[in-house]
Amino acid sequence: MHIAKKWIYAKPFVDEPTLDNFQLVEETVPELQDGEFMIRAMYLSVDPYMRIYTLSFPTGTTMIGGQVGQVIESKNDAFPVGSYAFAQVGWRTISVCDPSKFETRKPYVLPDLGDLPLSLGAGALGTVGNTAYFGFLEICKPKANEVVVVSGAAGAVGSLVGQIAKLKGCRVIGIAGTNEKCQWLKDVGFDGTINYREENIEAVLKQLAPDGVDCYFDNVGGHISETIKAQMKAFGRISVCGTISMYSSQPVKVVDPQRDFVWKQLMQEGFSVHRWTDRWFEGITQILAWIKEGKLKYRETITEGFENMPIAFIDMMKGGNVGKAIVKV
Amino acid sequence: MHIAKKWIYAKPFVDEPTLDNFQLVEETVPELQDGEFMIRAMYLSVDPYMRIYTLSFPTGTTMIGGQVGQVIESKNDAFPVGSYAFAQVGWRTISVCDPSKFETRKPYVLPDLGDLPLSLGAGALGTVGNTAYFGFLEICKPKANEVVVVSGAAGAVGSLVGQIAKLKGCRVIGIAGTNEKCQWLKDVGFDGTINYREENIEAVLKQLAPDGVDCYFDNVGGHISETIKAQMKAFGRISVCGTISMYSSQPVKVVDPQRDFVWKQLMQEGFSVHRWTDRWFEGITQILAWIKEGKLKYRETITEGFENMPIAFIDMMKGGNVGKAIVKV
Repeated sequence: MHIAKKWIYAKPFVDEPTLDNFQLVEETVPELQDGEFMIRAMYLSVDPYMRIYTLSFPTGTTMIGGQVGQVIESKNDAFPVGSYAFAQVGWRTISVCDPSKFETRKPYVLPDLGDLPLSLGAGALGTVGNTAYFGFLEICKPKANEVVVVSGAAGAVGSLVGQIAKLKGCRVIGIAGTNEKCQWLKDVGFDGTINYREENIEAVLKQLAPDGVDCYFDNVGGHISETIKAQMKAFGRISVCGTISMYSSQPVKVVDPQRDFVWKQLMQEGFSVHRWTDRWFEGITQILAWIKEGKLKYRETITEGFENMPIAFIDMMKGGNVGKAIVKV
Repeated sequence: MHIAKKWIYAKPFVDEPTLDNFQLVEETVPELQDGEFMIRAMYLSVDPYMRIYTLSFPTGTTMIGGQVGQVIESKNDAFPVGSYAFAQVGWRTISVCDPSKFETRKPYVLPDLGDLPLSLGAGALGTVGNTAYFGFLEICKPKANEVVVVSGAAGAVGSLVGQIAKLKGCRVIGIAGTNEKCQWLKDVGFDGTINYREENIEAVLKQLAPDGVDCYFDNVGGHISETIKAQMKAFGRISVCGTISMYSSQPVKVVDPQRDFVWKQLMQEGFSVHRWTDRWFEGITQILAWIKEGKLKYRETITEGFENMPIAFIDMMKGGNVGKAIVKV
């Protein structure tokens, strides 16, 4: 019979997390059932997402999170005793794990990491690495020579993203909060850095990327992101990974338009109709056919007289029209 | 020798446009050069975009805009005298037009509209129609039975979008500013409407679309759009066509995070790494290879002791870590 420790979410987060948000308790680890294995934690991950995901749970819940551990008992052939695994079993020392009960990130035995530390299985060789790899490459679709900005650049994900961007031939600017971090970013190949606590992001970014930003990998949201987004190039791509600068604000008062993009995996893309110049008459032909077939109705608000154009325009701006506002000469 | 009239942008727009923003002047139409044609305006378009695009021009500029007109003189075989054309020549009665000088929307002779009015060439069978057709279908990629919300639904573009959505089998909710408009939307097949001046958008939308919104076609920006965006479903698509509700605000004071999406055709998409579950080990394998090859550096901030998890977490939230924050048991 094992006695395990675990951390409980004891008191709701308000602003910055404080010690009294958490409580350490002991629990008796239950006997294994068929299909289960028992894992002893080796490396537990703490990540920004916990701050906000936890808000969905009642106090008393075990803190959520992933870990790399060793299988110490098993009734599941895929997780032999002695093997090392990653499992999203929360902040626990010893856990019983039934892989079939996980919906998103199912537990898995780590691949052979060779001489590398097992802890990478809870970071660069796990969720964090994949977050950087897919979240950057699949969303931003970076091209060589493009300018990539990464916020939270010295963090787990950000530092990988910047380097992946360099591998793809991009010019990379990292934003971080200390000179030490910025120095490290330069050491690993970032072309430029901005210390957001000491430098004016807007001004420095204009110097570093006078023609604008192609890709922005956003870990922080809030003011920093608004500043960077204002300097995007046309057809720029923004991959929103997180908005940590907003996590510790009061939920009700938060103005955080990006958060939904993460939670709901939304996509937002403005457009100019000129993008489809080469298909111009395809559209016209289709709409024409629909009108002729009676499938598409139209309305116009026609203002008589060229001299009335300002009035027609003003009226239209106020919503005075129904359907298309037109001036008839 | 023709004497034409044109409207000048006389005084900068501030809030709502007013009459003194415009000035009517006469001009002598120049003689045609080779490749040019002369068009007499028949139908001029006034559109929301003029309110903001014009801000890029100095006062004294001819107001921008498209028109359907008749070719009255020509030194260009593609535009024979007597033909009807669409041309983006501004707010003018008679214009000389060199097609080779247009970069985006080049002039074109209208297709045969049969019995339909020529004015449609400046609306549903022109830019407006294509804006609705491509802007909705290509960006939102609607699927049958999805819920589509359209703001500015009774406007030129919005009313077409809603109907196109119906043709694609969607359930369509239109937002407009009068009961008359709402009634018309229902008449042309919208499943539901919201009068934003009289109804609570948030509450009514929850009734009309209790499971949320799949596609939002945004013509208005501002408060209305924020309200709708808060009710998007996961993987919802937002096509930002315009933000008219914000156009007449003071430019400096405007909080209009969506405008750049239109001007720059930006795309924004949040993500969860779980989207790529089926490629999980592809990412890990690639990163592993890069680390082994020395192409990818990593850092960890390791906190010793399971009991220190809250401290590690708090520290990480404050940015105390470099690279991946890890707790070592």
